[in-house]
Amino acid sequence: MLKGKMKAVVKHHRGYGAQLQAVDIPDIREDEVLIRVKMASICGTDIHIFTWDKWSQGRVNPPYVFGHEFAGEVIEAGGKVSNVSVGDYVSAETHIVCGTCRQCLTGQLHICKNTNIIGLDTQGCFAEYVALPAKNLWKNPIDMPLDIATIQEPMGNAVHSVLAGEVLGKTVAIIGCGPIGLMAVAVAKAAGADKVIALDVNDYRLQLAKKMGATHTIHSIKQNPLEITARLTDMDGVDVVCEMSGNPTAIDQGFKMATNGGRISILSLPAQPVTLNITEDIVFKGLTVQGITGRKVFSTWQQVSSLLGSGKVDVTPMITHRFSLSDFEKGFELMIKGQCGKVLLIP
Amino acid sequence: MLKGKMKAVVKHHRGYGAQLQAVDIPDIREDEVLIRVKMASICGTDIHIFTWDKWSQGRVNPPYVFGHEFAGEVIEAGGKVSNVSVGDYVSAETHIVCGTCRQCLTGQLHICKNTNIIGLDTQGCFAEYVALPAKNLWKNPIDMPLDIATIQEPMGNAVHSVLAGEVLGKTVAIIGCGPIGLMAVAVAKAAGADKVIALDVNDYRLQLAKKMGATHTIHSIKQNPLEITARLTDMDGVDVVCEMSGNPTAIDQGFKMATNGGRISILSLPAQPVTLNITEDIVFKGLTVQGITGRKVFSTWQQVSSLLGSGKVDVTPMITHRFSLSDFEKGFELMIKGQCGKVLLIP
Amino acid sequence: MLKGKMKAVVKHHRGYGAQLQAVDIPDIREDEVLIRVKMASICGTDIHIFTWDKWSQGRVNPPYVFGHEFAGEVIEAGGKVSNVSVGDYVSAETHIVCGTCRQCLTGQLHICKNTNIIGLDTQGCFAEYVALPAKNLWKNPIDMPLDIATIQEPMGNAVHSVLAGEVLGKTVAIIGCGPIGLMAVAVAKAAGADKVIALDVNDYRLQLAKKMGATHTIHSIKQNPLEITARLTDMDGVDVVCEMSGNPTAIDQGFKMATNGGRISILSLPAQPVTLNITEDIVFKGLTVQGITGRKVFSTWQQVSSLLGSGKVDVTPMITHRFSLSDFEKGFELMIKGQCGKVLLIP
Amino acid sequence: MLKGKMKAVVKHHRGYGAQLQAVDIPDIREDEVLIRVKMASICGTDIHIFTWDKWSQGRVNPPYVFGHEFAGEVIEAGGKVSNVSVGDYVSAETHIVCGTCRQCLTGQLHICKNTNIIGLDTQGCFAEYVALPAKNLWKNPIDMPLDIATIQEPMGNAVHSVLAGEVLGKTVAIIGCGPIGLMAVAVAKAAGADKVIALDVNDYRLQLAKKMGATHTIHSIKQNPLEITARLTDMDGVDVVCEMSGNPTAIDQGFKMATNGGRISILSLPAQPVTLNITEDIVFKGLTVQGITGRKVFSTWQQVSSLLGSGKVDVTPMITHRFSLSDFEKGFELMIKGQCGKVLLIP
Repeated sequence: MLKGKMKAVVKHHRGYGAQLQAVDIPDIREDEVLIRVKMASICGTDIHIFTWDKWSQGRVNPPYVFGHEFAGEVIEAGGKVSNVSVGDYVSAETHIVCGTCRQCLTGQLHICKNTNIIGLDTQGCFAEYVALPAKNLWKNPIDMPLDIATIQEPMGNAVHSVLAGEVLGKTVAIIGCGPIGLMAVAVAKAAGADKVIALDVNDYRLQLAKKMGATHTIHSIKQNPLEITARLTDMDGVDVVCEMSGNPTAIDQGFKMATNGGRISILSLPAQPVTLNITEDIVFKGLTVQGITGRKVFSTWQQVSSLLGSGKVDVTPMITHRFSLSDFEKGFELMIKGQCGKVLLIP
Repeated sequence: MLKGKMKAVVKHHRGYGAQLQAVDIPDIREDEVLIRVKMASICGTDIHIFTWDKWSQGRVNPPYVFGHEFAGEVIEAGGKVSNVSVGDYVSAETHIVCGTCRQCLTGQLHICKNTNIIGLDTQGCFAEYVALPAKNLWKNPIDMPLDIATIQEPMGNAVHSVLAGEVLGKTVAIIGCGPIGLMAVAVAKAAGADKVIALDVNDYRLQLAKKMGATHTIHSIKQNPLEITARLTDMDGVDVVCEMSGNPTAIDQGFKMATNGGRISILSLPAQPVTLNITEDIVFKGLTVQGITGRKVFSTWQQVSSLLGSGKVDVTPMITHRFSLSDFEKGFELMIKGQCGKVLLIP
Repeated sequence: MLKGKMKAVVKHHRGYGAQLQAVDIPDIREDEVLIRVKMASICGTDIHIFTWDKWSQGRVNPPYVFGHEFAGEVIEAGGKVSNVSVGDYVSAETHIVCGTCRQCLTGQLHICKNTNIIGLDTQGCFAEYVALPAKNLWKNPIDMPLDIATIQEPMGNAVHSVLAGEVLGKTVAIIGCGPIGLMAVAVAKAAGADKVIALDVNDYRLQLAKKMGATHTIHSIKQNPLEITARLTDMDGVDVVCEMSGNPTAIDQGFKMATNGGRISILSLPAQPVTLNITEDIVFKGLTVQGITGRKVFSTWQQVSSLLGSGKVDVTPMITHRFSLSDFEKGFELMIKGQCGKVLLIP
Repeated sequence: MLKGKMKAVVKHHRGYGAQLQAVDIPDIREDEVLIRVKMASICGTDIHIFTWDKWSQGRVNPPYVFGHEFAGEVIEAGGKVSNVSVGDYVSAETHIVCGTCRQCLTGQLHICKNTNIIGLDTQGCFAEYVALPAKNLWKNPIDMPLDIATIQEPMGNAVHSVLAGEVLGKTVAIIGCGPIGLMAVAVAKAAGADKVIALDVNDYRLQLAKKMGATHTIHSIKQNPLEITARLTDMDGVDVVCEMSGNPTAIDQGFKMATNGGRISILSLPAQPVTLNITEDIVFKGLTVQGITGRKVFSTWQQVSSLLGSGKVDVTPMITHRFSLSDFEKGFELMIKGQCGKVLLIP
């Protein structure tokens, strides 16, 4: 069993920031594997933890290693592990589920009542090595580039959101063009959406949305989202809204731009309660609102794998920056400013 | 063609109340029929109009005859009518749809963008006769009592709400035990719900809910809805919530009592915007929220017809009062006080 | 660890029949439990094995203990077992799945590509004790009678078939009134079916179908199934057909009695290829045909549990005979003759 | 009202062939329009009628004008027509439905029990003018080429078949590469299929399938379809099979190449009953079989319109021949030989 120290990005205190530290290489249990992390990427959740926002303060227990998006190689496997082998090239589902709650027993693992999150409730992957339950691993095709393999997990969020209902021939609005929103644009296109309208308040990200295949972009402050979406749909409204901004005004606009019988899939986590006109914007419209969390295990992973493997979705335009793990702070700064797509960290 | 005067309940002015008047028997167009109204019933919408609340002030144009729930007999048919004949025993779908909008063209008539509502946008059925488009009529079995035939339309709302997803073996909460909520209780039972929990703040109506088959009732003020529903579901939460109260506190409780992966179907029309904790109560739960309006034309009507015809739903316990049309004000008063189930009016 | 001999019904040779023998009490692995069998029941599959029909000859490897429907008590648990404890009252899902094929990875455990069947590929439950993987166990409510607990597995087949689509308000035909067909009658009723038509060629079983709630029964030889189902549906045809007979003529009639847009769910295993008029009976009708195998793990088990626990389905009328395990041959004889509903065996 | 004679292709006798004749320009009823046909195309059904096969002999009543795929201009409209106007550029849904059967009343117009088919039960479009019910018309975008507009109806069959279930990320086999099969290839690609495998016994059409986007083609006689599809799917089997050949051997292969939990959508009309191994190929696999007829009115038309308008599907490679209406026999000969994709007729 590998012993010794490794480099890791540690959320070291209950406050802003994180530190590069030398920590023990983790031990594994019988049903776990040890993985050498070859590439990692920064999620919005990691930014919450780094900046120590209100949510983090109530949820996170420093000190610990955070991070959960990665690609790596299995270098040790516990005695009870049978689904992966040493040498396998893997990424991982972030939700560690109980397997025994009513949701798990009916195949809805993504909404397990007792979920533990990698890099939040457990030691994460912003490190040279990470120990994980074998059942959470997803084997990558050997020819998949590390850049691509590491973003499968967040792309799973995009796929889960967009494909939670019919898309082909429909007008899809993606509100919020962070990395997941940008991937959602490409997924909607690949699924046969008629128009894909990307909305944000950040010109840099709207440019990326264009590169990812948005047929139209709207700057939600400089332009009027409701007017433009109405015009683009012959005054009928948008069929599918994927809400990924968390902004109350944008959310309200999302409900208002939806057509009768439309669908709004919400992946964002608004920091505050949001006020909605249920009567006009949900009931009379016969709208369907879906809360989206995690990924369907492993149906969504299979869809992600197919979209990437077949070339139907090209995520490279939105992978904008790479840093060594030691330079992680540069990546976090860019993410905080929103002047980036996906940021990779190389251990 | 029948000519002359008839008794009708007229919303006569822009203010509280209504008047019994003698008005002209309506003419029919080529695609319409004239119906002799044999029984009518009072809907919550009629109460809004009667009391001249804010919504009515912005929506209704007096003077006109209101009312839309009824059963009657076709006594004249226009030249282009082929689906019903003179002598047929009928009730009617309240939504008059355009047939040409995108929703209509894809079979979603209940959310037609250009819907006209009987008794709201047209002359209604609180009268001895009513003229209606033939395509809106539903033929009743000849042996169906008038009491039952007239409440099929609101029962359609209950059926549309409850059956908008799986019910069998699930725990269903019905929030708000007005006539539609009461029927929803019985529909959930008939559809194989495991537990049917009825919630209201009116003891009279909770008693009716018991009679309609509720396995549990909760007085939302005297008791703690979240505690009790948690206990009744082994701390898992309710699978299906049918929101029929329009009360913001009750709606918030509805979202909170739902389990992960649950469904909340909203038929009520809250008068005010409602503030929701989207992050905790929708996203992390993977909840599905459905706006429910009208009835599926005519799938819902067929389901109603089957549930009534087979005896699976018995609505008689919630039909509590009968008045002659001339005594309509007594019925409206009872409805305003909530001391009734369904109130019938006999022309 | 319990050691010694136990009584068991052994398929002892490649030919007709079975023998009561004293065999070793099985050992358990770390992920298994040992269960004291308190009640078992005979499945149609057991009859195939007993009579050594063509299918058995190609599938079964004597000598071994067969049987898979049971209820019992956990008396030993392997070191890795966490979902059940000694003393638990359990039954078991019969399909032991691999967990790694594409079907398992997407939550479709019932069609796992590498399924092993209890009592077919493993030692079964017609014995005083049975060793099983803990993950296959279903905990029974402590107040559930043994008779009821043991038939949950086959009732799962009935539930899986009937509830594979909409039922409420529909006309459902159940073709073949063996124990699963009989339970399907009751499930269809509980799910709100309008009419439940039971078909068989055995008067005894048609009588049982009536007791289970069939609104109509048809003797498929003495009567004309197509004529009667047409008449019962105003010449429209049956909405849902559950095929549980395996008889080619009956199957063809099932397709012919279905209405346009109908559904036919096939659970039976016809011994011969069946000739169908695809053009008239599937394509022009826009029919949906579903192959049904096993039970959804564990969604179907939850539905079964609810239907039994709430009293919506009463299976007692179709549990017609009880024998001690030593008298198993009497039970098999009755099953072969079709002069029974479900037959229980008490170890 | 336009009066006089027009050129038309008439099925003139109960035997092989058809004749170009001068017939009366049709009159229109109040709910009909007269259309000047600008482009028509030949369907497989027209070949049945032309060659006077067994099916035609039992279904068709000469003499009459046949043909149902077209694009044209409304030149007269009956007094009751409101959904289209003179000057509109239109194509038409081929199924004229009753609007009153149980299927129509529940929005399933494509399986109406009383369907009349244009060009089969009514005078068709292989003519200079055609009279049609206004409700059957679909307005084309003014910039859609005539070639494209006329093939929307058969493309609707392809869309209805392929999109009758999930496609994204799945392996889709299209069996039979006539014009509809060829379009199905392109639709599957546009909907995000992972692999699209086209099968036929005609090299010319397999070449066209490649041009339409098939990732793999299989000559079902020269090659082994089951071996190749197994290999292409890591021995798992095909997720979705669209059967468009009508050939019993090919149909049987379709069932055998499907994976557990797969779907087979059958649009073809096999001339003979087909023998299936229900036990192995449907039940144990948990397969779903769907009969597909017509198009969903008008959901499918909207999907077709979007796929064509957005450029996601390019049908031009499979439109291989154009003839003047007078030369119709050349087109029919090519179709009979299978040495063509779609054949257009220009009045």
